[in-house]
Amino acid sequence: MHHPAPLTGVVPPLCTPLTPDGEVDPGSLGALVERLVTAGVGGLFALGSSGEAAYLSDARRRTALRTVVETAAGRVPVLAGVIDMTTARVLDHARAAAELGADALVATAPFYTRTHPAETAAHFRAIRAAVDLPLYAYDIPSAVHTKLAAATVLELAADGTLAGLKDSSGDDGALRRLLTGLRERGLADTFSVLTGSELAVDGALLAGAHGVVPGLGNVDPDGYVRLYEHARAGRWREAAAEQDRLAALFALTEAGDPALMGGSSSALGGFKAALHLLGVIGCPATAAPQIPLDEAAVKTVRGHLRDGGLL
Amino acid sequence: MHHPAPLTGVVPPLCTPLTPDGEVDPGSLGALVERLVTAGVGGLFALGSSGEAAYLSDARRRTALRTVVETAAGRVPVLAGVIDMTTARVLDHARAAAELGADALVATAPFYTRTHPAETAAHFRAIRAAVDLPLYAYDIPSAVHTKLAAATVLELAADGTLAGLKDSSGDDGALRRLLTGLRERGLADTFSVLTGSELAVDGALLAGAHGVVPGLGNVDPDGYVRLYEHARAGRWREAAAEQDRLAALFALTEAGDPALMGGSSSALGGFKAALHLLGVIGCPATAAPQIPLDEAAVKTVRGHLRDGGLL
Amino acid sequence: MHHPAPLTGVVPPLCTPLTPDGEVDPGSLGALVERLVTAGVGGLFALGSSGEAAYLSDARRRTALRTVVETAAGRVPVLAGVIDMTTARVLDHARAAAELGADALVATAPFYTRTHPAETAAHFRAIRAAVDLPLYAYDIPSAVHTKLAAATVLELAADGTLAGLKDSSGDDGALRRLLTGLRERGLADTFSVLTGSELAVDGALLAGAHGVVPGLGNVDPDGYVRLYEHARAGRWREAAAEQDRLAALFALTEAGDPALMGGSSSALGGFKAALHLLGVIGCPATAAPQIPLDEAAVKTVRGHLRDGGLL
Amino acid sequence: MHHPAPLTGVVPPLCTPLTPDGEVDPGSLGALVERLVTAGVGGLFALGSSGEAAYLSDARRRTALRTVVETAAGRVPVLAGVIDMTTARVLDHARAAAELGADALVATAPFYTRTHPAETAAHFRAIRAAVDLPLYAYDIPSAVHTKLAAATVLELAADGTLAGLKDSSGDDGALRRLLTGLRERGLADTFSVLTGSELAVDGALLAGAHGVVPGLGNVDPDGYVRLYEHARAGRWREAAAEQDRLAALFALTEAGDPALMGGSSSALGGFKAALHLLGVIGCPATAAPQIPLDEAAVKTVRGHLRDGGLL
Repeated sequence: MHHPAPLTGVVPPLCTPLTPDGEVDPGSLGALVERLVTAGVGGLFALGSSGEAAYLSDARRRTALRTVVETAAGRVPVLAGVIDMTTARVLDHARAAAELGADALVATAPFYTRTHPAETAAHFRAIRAAVDLPLYAYDIPSAVHTKLAAATVLELAADGTLAGLKDSSGDDGALRRLLTGLRERGLADTFSVLTGSELAVDGALLAGAHGVVPGLGNVDPDGYVRLYEHARAGRWREAAAEQDRLAALFALTEAGDPALMGGSSSALGGFKAALHLLGVIGCPATAAPQIPLDEAAVKTVRGHLRDGGLL
Repeated sequence: MHHPAPLTGVVPPLCTPLTPDGEVDPGSLGALVERLVTAGVGGLFALGSSGEAAYLSDARRRTALRTVVETAAGRVPVLAGVIDMTTARVLDHARAAAELGADALVATAPFYTRTHPAETAAHFRAIRAAVDLPLYAYDIPSAVHTKLAAATVLELAADGTLAGLKDSSGDDGALRRLLTGLRERGLADTFSVLTGSELAVDGALLAGAHGVVPGLGNVDPDGYVRLYEHARAGRWREAAAEQDRLAALFALTEAGDPALMGGSSSALGGFKAALHLLGVIGCPATAAPQIPLDEAAVKTVRGHLRDGGLL
Repeated sequence: MHHPAPLTGVVPPLCTPLTPDGEVDPGSLGALVERLVTAGVGGLFALGSSGEAAYLSDARRRTALRTVVETAAGRVPVLAGVIDMTTARVLDHARAAAELGADALVATAPFYTRTHPAETAAHFRAIRAAVDLPLYAYDIPSAVHTKLAAATVLELAADGTLAGLKDSSGDDGALRRLLTGLRERGLADTFSVLTGSELAVDGALLAGAHGVVPGLGNVDPDGYVRLYEHARAGRWREAAAEQDRLAALFALTEAGDPALMGGSSSALGGFKAALHLLGVIGCPATAAPQIPLDEAAVKTVRGHLRDGGLL
Repeated sequence: MHHPAPLTGVVPPLCTPLTPDGEVDPGSLGALVERLVTAGVGGLFALGSSGEAAYLSDARRRTALRTVVETAAGRVPVLAGVIDMTTARVLDHARAAAELGADALVATAPFYTRTHPAETAAHFRAIRAAVDLPLYAYDIPSAVHTKLAAATVLELAADGTLAGLKDSSGDDGALRRLLTGLRERGLADTFSVLTGSELAVDGALLAGAHGVVPGLGNVDPDGYVRLYEHARAGRWREAAAEQDRLAALFALTEAGDPALMGGSSSALGGFKAALHLLGVIGCPATAAPQIPLDEAAVKTVRGHLRDGGLL
C-alpha cells in the first residue's frame, strides 16, 4: 500500500478482539477490519491505546498486526503503534512491524522516565533512521505524562523525521497553533495532522486537521465517515449535528462504575461490549488486569447503541 | 443593565491597567472599556484572571470594578469576578460587587483546599443564595487544580443556581458533551456557555457555545467580533480564517522568556505591552511579583501586532 | 514576645473553633490555646491550613488572631499565617497581623497564578520589606501546587529575608538536603526548619529539623511534646515509639467517607470532632463549604481517641 | 540462594554498564556486582529504574540479569525488576527472570493506562500466581503516576501475594502508617519494607523499615552499609552523620544542566560517571535517548566524589 501524504479521513484505532482466555481472536479482528474498510475509512491504526497495545504481549501484538495487514490487503494503509518506554524497546517493535508489512509507524514520547524535549526529538529521529517507514508522533499526555511541544513537532516535520501527528492531547488551542505553524512553513499539504479528540472533530477539521483517529469509530464508522465527508464538502452544520449524535453515543465509554474499575476498563470495555452487541466480534473480553463490565453496564451500552440508532 | 439569558457574543476579560506604582489607573481602564464597547462586545468580564484579580488588593478590585461599571454605563452587562479560596471569602467579594453595580458574578470552584464535587456544588449554591445576581461558574483547572464535573454544572444549571459557564478548561470534548447535555434538558436557550479557549472559538461556536471570553480580545476586539459574526451567519470558512489570524497574534503572550518569568507574567505582560503600544493604556506595568517584559520582549510584541495588522 | 532564633519545639497550627453559624468562637479558641501552652509548646501558628485560613473571611481571621495573641499573652511566640494568592493581598494580611501583635508571619508561594521561582523570591522579599516581622516560608505544594526550590530557600535564608521554613511538602529527601545546605552555610543555628510531616517527626529531628508544626498537635499536644523531648535527649527509640502511637491516632483524619467529602473536610472535621469529644471546644463545626462528619464518622474518631489513650 | 523473609540491609538497584554502542557490558557489570557484594550488601536489585530497565531491550535485560545472577553466585539474593505496562507483558519478563535464576521479582503498578486499585491488586495477584518467586511491589509514582494505596499493600501482604515493598514514593508519612499497619497485623517480621528514599534512610530505619534500595549505593556502598549498621546498633547520631555525608554526595545526580537534559539523564549519567571515575566500569554511557553529561558536568561529579572522600 502506498502511504499517502498527507494521510486524510477517518483512521480508526482498531480494538483488538480477544478470546475468553486472553488470546487475540483473528477472526473477530478480521471482521472488524472488513467492516471499517467497507465503511470507507482512510486508514487503520493497529496497536494503539484503543487496541490495548499496553496490555498485549509481543506475541499477541504480532498476531494482531499480521491479521490487520492481511485483511486490509492494501486497500487502505495500516499504521502500527510501537508503544514502549524508550528508544531501544520501540525499535524492536518497529522492526517487527516493518517485517509484518505495516505502512507506517506511530510512536509516543518516552514514558516512565523523566525526559527532556531534546531527548524526545532524538527518540523520534532514532526511530526514523533505523526503520524506513513513515513515522507519526502520538501525542497522548494522559498516558505518557508529557505534552509534545509544538516547537518539537514543527522541527521534526520540517526535517522529514515525522510524516504526521496523532494528537490525543485534547489541547485544541495548541492544535490550532500547530496548524497555523505548519501552514507558515509550507508543510500543511504534506504533514498529516490527525485529531484524537473524537468529540470535537468538526472544529478540528474546520481548523485544518486532515483527519481523525476516533476510538468510537470502531463502533460507528459510518457516523465518522459522514462527519468527515460533510466537513470536506463545507456542510458544517451537518457535520456538527453528526458530531453531536456521536458525542451522545460516546456515553457508552462511561458505563462502567468508576468506584469499581479504571477509566481504561470502562472505555475499552464499552467499545468491545458494543462491538459484541452489534455482532462484529465474538467476545467482549478485555485484557488483564482490566475489570469486565457487569450485566448492568452492558445494558447501559445497549441503551446507548439503541439511542444512537445502531441497534 | 438587564442581564440577557443567555448572554452571547464576545465578553472580554478586561485587563486592569496599573500605574507605575501598582495602583489601578481608572483613566486607562475607562479607555479600554470604551474601546471594547465601541467594537461591539456582548459584555465585559471585570476581575478575571486576565484582569489580574489574583494580584489586586480588595481596594484595587473595588476601584477597578467601579470604573468598569461607570464607564459601561449600562450599554453592556458587566460580569464581576469574585475570585477567592472558599465560600465566606467569595461572599465578601460578591456583596461588594453587588453594591458596586455588577450585573452578574463569576466564581471559581474552591481552591487551595482539597474539595469534593458536592462541596463545590454547595459553594455555588451558597453564593447564589446570598447575593441576588446571576452567577457564572468559572472552570479554570490551570488555576484551581480541579475540573468542574459536567454532572455538577448540569445540576446547577437545571436548578437555577448558575446562569452560565465560563469554560477555560481547554477540554473541548467535555464542552461538547456539556452542550449536548444542556440541549437534552432544554436548557441550551437560557444557560450561557462561554468558551475561554480563545484559539478554538470557531469550533466552540459550531458546537453551540453562546460566546467567548478571550483575553486577546483586549488587544483585538474587532477581530473577535468579526469571528463571532461570521459564525453567527454560518460563514464558517471566514470564521476559521479570522481565528487563524488571531491564533498567530496570540504569540504575543509568549514574548517573555520562560527561563526568566512565569507564564502569567509573559501572557499578562504581553497583553498590556500591546495595549500600551496601541495607545490604549498609559503604562504596561503588571502587578507584583510579576516580572516585567524587557525591551526585546516588547519588540517581539510589536512585531506580532504589526504582522497582525494592528500597528 | 521575643521571637527566638531559631524557633524550636512543637508549634501547633491552631484549629479555629467556630460557632454553629460559622463565626469564630473566641472562648473555645482561648481554651485551645491555654491547653497547648500548658502542654509546653514552643510557639503557636494561627491561621494556617489546619486553622481553616482559606475558609475564613478577613474579619474572622482578625478575630481569631486577636484571640490567640491575647490568650498567649507573651508566653510563647505567635506566628500568623498570611495566606493569599499574591503579594498585594498578602501584604494586607501581613499589616493586619502586625497590628494585632503577631510575633512572626508565615506566607506561602503565590498560587492561582503561574509563577516562576524568581517571582516567588521577589514575593517573599516584598513581604519582608514591607512589614517588620520575622518571616517564615510555608512550603505546601498540596495547596499551592508548586514546591519551593531549595536554592530559593537557601538564598532567602542567607540574605535575611526568611527566618525559617514550615515544610509541609512531605519531601524528606529535599528537607535533608536543605538542612545540610544550611549547615554548610553556617545558617543552621539561626534559621528555623519546622517540619509539617507530622508522621515522620522523629526522622526529621534526627536529620536536624528544629521543630514540628503538627495539626494533630491540637488533639494530642502532650504526645508531640514528649516526642520532641525524647529526640532532644537522644532517646530515639522512645521518640519513635511515641511517633508510632501518634501515627495510629492520625487515622482520625480519615474518618470521613471520601465518596462524600473532600480530604480537607475529613481531616479538619476529624481534628475538631476530637477536640469536641475531649471537651476542649464547644462545637465541632467546620467552615463552608465543607461537609460535616456524620455520626458514624464521629464514632470512628472517638474510637481512635480511646485507642490512643486520650479518652 | 535462599530468599530471606524479611530481606534486610542495603539492596542497591544496580546500574547497568553499557558499551559505547549501547550493549550491556558484562565485565563492568560483574565488577560492580563484586564490589557491592564485597561491601556487604544484603541483596542486589537488577533491572530497576537505576538499572535503566526502561531503556533496555528484552535481550539486553536478559544479558544484564544473567550476569548479575552468575556473579552473585548465591552469595546474596538477586531481585529482578520486571518493569512493563501491564500484566501480560510483565509476565513475559517474570518468566524470563525465573529461568535466569532470579531469587525474587519486583513489579510496579500498571502504567500508561488508567488503572483502579482493584486492578492493581489483580495485577500483582496474577504475577504471583503465574511465577513461583517472592514478589515485591515497587511503589514509584514519579514513573507510573499512581501511588500504591496502603490498604492494597496491607491486603496483599496479608494474603501472601507480596513478600515486600520497595517504596520510592518519597511519602514518609504513608510509609510510617504502613509500618504501623504491618505491626498491628503481625506482618512486620516477615514482610520486607525497603525504602528508596536514599536521603532519609536513618529516619526510615528508625521508623522500622528493613532496608534501603539506594541508587547512590552503586557509588558508595560502604557508606550505606555503615549507615545501616549504625542504625541496627542504635547509634542514631552516627547514622545521621553518615546520611548527611551521603546527602551531600547525592549532588552528583544534578551535575547535568536541566536546560539541556531530563532528570533521568542527569541522575543516571551522574552515577555512571562516578563509577567510571572510580574505575569500576569501563564506559559511562547511558542508553538512548538520554543526553550524555558534558565535560563540565563530569568535572562536577569528580568534585563531589572528592568532597565525599571517595577520590
